Amino acid sequence: MKLEKLVGERFKERPSDCVIDSHALMIRGGYMKYVGNGIYSSLLPLKRITRKIEKIIREEMDKIDGQEVQFPVVMPASLWQESGRYESIGNELVRFYDRNKNPLVLGMTHEEAAVQLVRDYAQSYSKYPFMVYQIQTKFRDEARPRGGLIRVREFTMKDAYSFHINQADLENYYERCYQAYGRIFSRVGVPEVISVASDSGMMGGNISHEFMLLTPIGEDSIVICSNCSYKANMEAADSVVCNERDNISDNIKLVSTPDIKTMEEVCGFLHVTKEKTCKAVVYQKNSDNSYIVVFIRGDLDVNETKLSNLLGYDIHTATIIVESELATGYIGPYLLEGNYTILYDKSLDNANNIVCGGNRLGHHYTGLDIGRDIENATFHDLAKIQDGGICPCCGKRSISISRGVEVGNIFQLGTKYTKSMNMTFVDEEGTTQYPSMGCYGIGIGRLVASVCEALHDEFGPIWPMAIAPWQVHICAVRSDDNAVKEIANKIYEELLRSGIEVIYDDRSVRAGVMFSDADLLGVPLRIIISPRNIKENCCEIISRDKTISMKVALDLIKEKTLELIQLLDKKYID
Amino acid sequence: MKLEKLVGERFKERPSDCVIDSHALMIRGGYMKYVGNGIYSSLLPLKRITRKIEKIIREEMDKIDGQEVQFPVVMPASLWQESGRYESIGNELVRFYDRNKNPLVLGMTHEEAAVQLVRDYAQSYSKYPFMVYQIQTKFRDEARPRGGLIRVREFTMKDAYSFHINQADLENYYERCYQAYGRIFSRVGVPEVISVASDSGMMGGNISHEFMLLTPIGEDSIVICSNCSYKANMEAADSVVCNERDNISDNIKLVSTPDIKTMEEVCGFLHVTKEKTCKAVVYQKNSDNSYIVVFIRGDLDVNETKLSNLLGYDIHTATIIVESELATGYIGPYLLEGNYTILYDKSLDNANNIVCGGNRLGHHYTGLDIGRDIENATFHDLAKIQDGGICPCCGKRSISISRGVEVGNIFQLGTKYTKSMNMTFVDEEGTTQYPSMGCYGIGIGRLVASVCEALHDEFGPIWPMAIAPWQVHICAVRSDDNAVKEIANKIYEELLRSGIEVIYDDRSVRAGVMFSDADLLGVPLRIIISPRNIKENCCEIISRDKTISMKVALDLIKEKTLELIQLLDKKYID
Repeated sequence: MKLEKLVGERFKERPSDCVIDSHALMIRGGYMKYVGNGIYSSLLPLKRITRKIEKIIREEMDKIDGQEVQFPVVMPASLWQESGRYESIGNELVRFYDRNKNPLVLGMTHEEAAVQLVRDYAQSYSKYPFMVYQIQTKFRDEARPRGGLIRVREFTMKDAYSFHINQADLENYYERCYQAYGRIFSRVGVPEVISVASDSGMMGGNISHEFMLLTPIGEDSIVICSNCSYKANMEAADSVVCNERDNISDNIKLVSTPDIKTMEEVCGFLHVTKEKTCKAVVYQKNSDNSYIVVFIRGDLDVNETKLSNLLGYDIHTATIIVESELATGYIGPYLLEGNYTILYDKSLDNANNIVCGGNRLGHHYTGLDIGRDIENATFHDLAKIQDGGICPCCGKRSISISRGVEVGNIFQLGTKYTKSMNMTFVDEEGTTQYPSMGCYGIGIGRLVASVCEALHDEFGPIWPMAIAPWQVHICAVRSDDNAVKEIANKIYEELLRSGIEVIYDDRSVRAGVMFSDADLLGVPLRIIISPRNIKENCCEIISRDKTISMKVALDLIKEKTLELIQLLDKKYID
Repeated sequence: MKLEKLVGERFKERPSDCVIDSHALMIRGGYMKYVGNGIYSSLLPLKRITRKIEKIIREEMDKIDGQEVQFPVVMPASLWQESGRYESIGNELVRFYDRNKNPLVLGMTHEEAAVQLVRDYAQSYSKYPFMVYQIQTKFRDEARPRGGLIRVREFTMKDAYSFHINQADLENYYERCYQAYGRIFSRVGVPEVISVASDSGMMGGNISHEFMLLTPIGEDSIVICSNCSYKANMEAADSVVCNERDNISDNIKLVSTPDIKTMEEVCGFLHVTKEKTCKAVVYQKNSDNSYIVVFIRGDLDVNETKLSNLLGYDIHTATIIVESELATGYIGPYLLEGNYTILYDKSLDNANNIVCGGNRLGHHYTGLDIGRDIENATFHDLAKIQDGGICPCCGKRSISISRGVEVGNIFQLGTKYTKSMNMTFVDEEGTTQYPSMGCYGIGIGRLVASVCEALHDEFGPIWPMAIAPWQVHICAVRSDDNAVKEIANKIYEELLRSGIEVIYDDRSVRAGVMFSDADLLGVPLRIIISPRNIKENCCEIISRDKTISMKVALDLIKEKTLELIQLLDKKYID
């Protein structure tokens, strides 16, 4: 098509509300437009990109025997009441009422709908295994949308649900899907996406993986071992600590530490390292605001996901009020009395000669020996793994932490949903059983933004051939020159006839404007036709990623273009 | 794919809640599943059909220079407040609040979103004309969903919006889109879809057309002239009446008509025809319940759409309470006093010797001469056109009324939305103007159901080749026979390699079960491989529509199948 007719504004200035590059470039390039908080409209270039990604995803899902279906965006609340999630999920689930006062929800995920779709059908073992998937709009009322398409409220997702007669078959299929995901990210142009073990969160189930594109703008912290193959989301990574005990335990002693509150001040004042201190971190239960006090070694931080999983309920950072009788800044485990849930991180197991809060203002204890001084303390893994820390897999001090964007996830859900929604089948022996379930998601918009984040320069995105909005961008520089116009038109028509996707810029604008627009559209191949070139009976072909720049004789353009499209298409695929 | 693995139940019994055939067949064939009132999930066969329809629609929209975009399903209420529709549309617009108490709506149409998307871009005349379209899920909280996919609450729609510098350009594009719609319905397999003039309703604007598939299960009444080309929706059809006046006007006289209330009783008692009576029909304004009394000739009915359009507000059939002082059953225009809005249908213009209500119980007037007895009566076109009535176009008594399902519509919206949402452009003379807008919809699910309604027999749908879920259905009858199995497998693989879409039934089930499942899936070509056939070294190929039935030598199957696919594909296209 002609660029002149492409609906959407392109402009130079980085919008002030764009924190990350992909967001700024996709607004500046006329890919999308802000409609409301975390809600965007897509314009043609973005729509073309997403359709290509969807096609790749469909092909890979069909290859692993997926059947495309479509679940509703709007569902009766009763479906979510069956699974228990109508009550258990927070504000991110949009609940509303129809004209007859019946409660409805907006789909943010479709486990319930998947079970409802197949539970009458799949009553015999002979129907298993099977997988259904859809590509559809979802809405999740995020508290803090950010980064353009990186975190929105309305998004398009591929979500798949598989059903199995047992855990072994689920694991087998999970592996097939894992491999398919690798192919998808590779074909889309980001083969560097890695998979990491993850926390299953509200989805339930045990084993799950996230597919992460490492980038500094990522919201997730990814734990990677440089020694072995261990990779995990920070939320899911076990913290391994080496608890070393002094030979001699001092006596416990209350000392005055006036106006000394921070960890650094305590360590400086009492001449100890952070490893010899015990820190209190206080939370409250969301439902009743009761207090949870976590004691952890002074050099470590609490992993709130692990804590919430252990407790079995949602928590938030505490607001400590006077009536709580907690001595803010001086809370310690020794002689702490009150109606609190008290938990110890395993970094404190067996520790001695520890400094901790004195449970009265301006005082600390020294010489705490947890085993000796605290009755019935039980220890849990509640700490965040640290950069430079010990790998829970190989045991080496070889952990590094990177930022990543989650572009996909896969979960072994087990029987959580089939049990709660009473989906059963009769096995070969005639016994009634609950099928096992897996679910598999890819956020399409976020994937586009991630590819853009991974592949761009200061002038615009550098789309991989497989998902680029067009394959070729023709720039007719000085289209007011009749010869240029005529040749450019001819090449445009010829390429179209060969089935090549072409965007054609024949506007009467300066070359600078033409090229900066082309940079923003990020089309992989650019053909430049100018008065100077055609004097030599050729044109220039350059690639957006700057790996190709050549002059090509006019009568060879079609062949060369087809060849380069193939070359670039392969480049991004394993 | 193998039929054995196809997720979805197929069964014989017509579900008791299915009133129309397409609904029953699509439930019985495992195309879709009920989730909630007016909400369905789609299974693979339906998804494959809709994807093919969407592809056809995309191609035709792209041909008329459409650009595919995507608007949000969830929109901020502010967008709809700008156009005024947040207030003016009733319960069918779902309104709700997000976690921060901001009001949102679910998209049931996207004029507002379209204007928002392009109004910054299209500020110069040089950007015009252009059209953007999307294919997307919508939600409309219908009071009475019915007929499966014929009237649902959640539906997938192609909606397009065009923008023009003036009315003439809009009309020009409207005609292009009109032609594209004809091609779409023809390619989809229902070339018999007709276009009719329609009422624009809540969309605003003046000229609009609906595309109707005539079928007894349709919700709309379609007015067709057998003499000229006039076609219109009943709601939009002008009523033409021939008002004949008696030479002599009698005096007006109050007569006692005890216990006589219905039109028939009055006519019988007073020995007059309905054409010589005046009927009162009473409505109330939705917003304040004030009364509207419409007087109309006794043989005609009120067209409520025309009435509502004339009044400029929504109305409902009145509940007449005593305090209204309206004499139910005896309301007439003569000496009617009270705070009512009183309107006359033009069927009463110039009428004399009319019987009408006496405005007191048990009494009528005879001899009413409207011109003589009623002061300041103004007459409007408020009547429904009647079967056998006069064509408003050619004037002949050649009107017939049929039922139809609306599968698409196109509207000339004019500047309604651009004005209210302040979208402007600067024309060639430097003057600021409001662009004109058109909008163009096709309900995809309803189109599928309509095709099914038009093309089915008692055993199942008869899908046109262009949109069938698969092109070929292989039945391996007696797949326990090794020779059958081997040959069927070979044919299956061969057809797949040729790019043919095949569903393959190699289950060990009776031929009857196999064929009734095949009938329900409605695949256009069926290849039957059976022990008897392969003894003759051939197989049977039959078409679902029964126009083809032949024996084909095994080594010619691929060629013959390809040939028949082409033949059937052409059959449904103009």
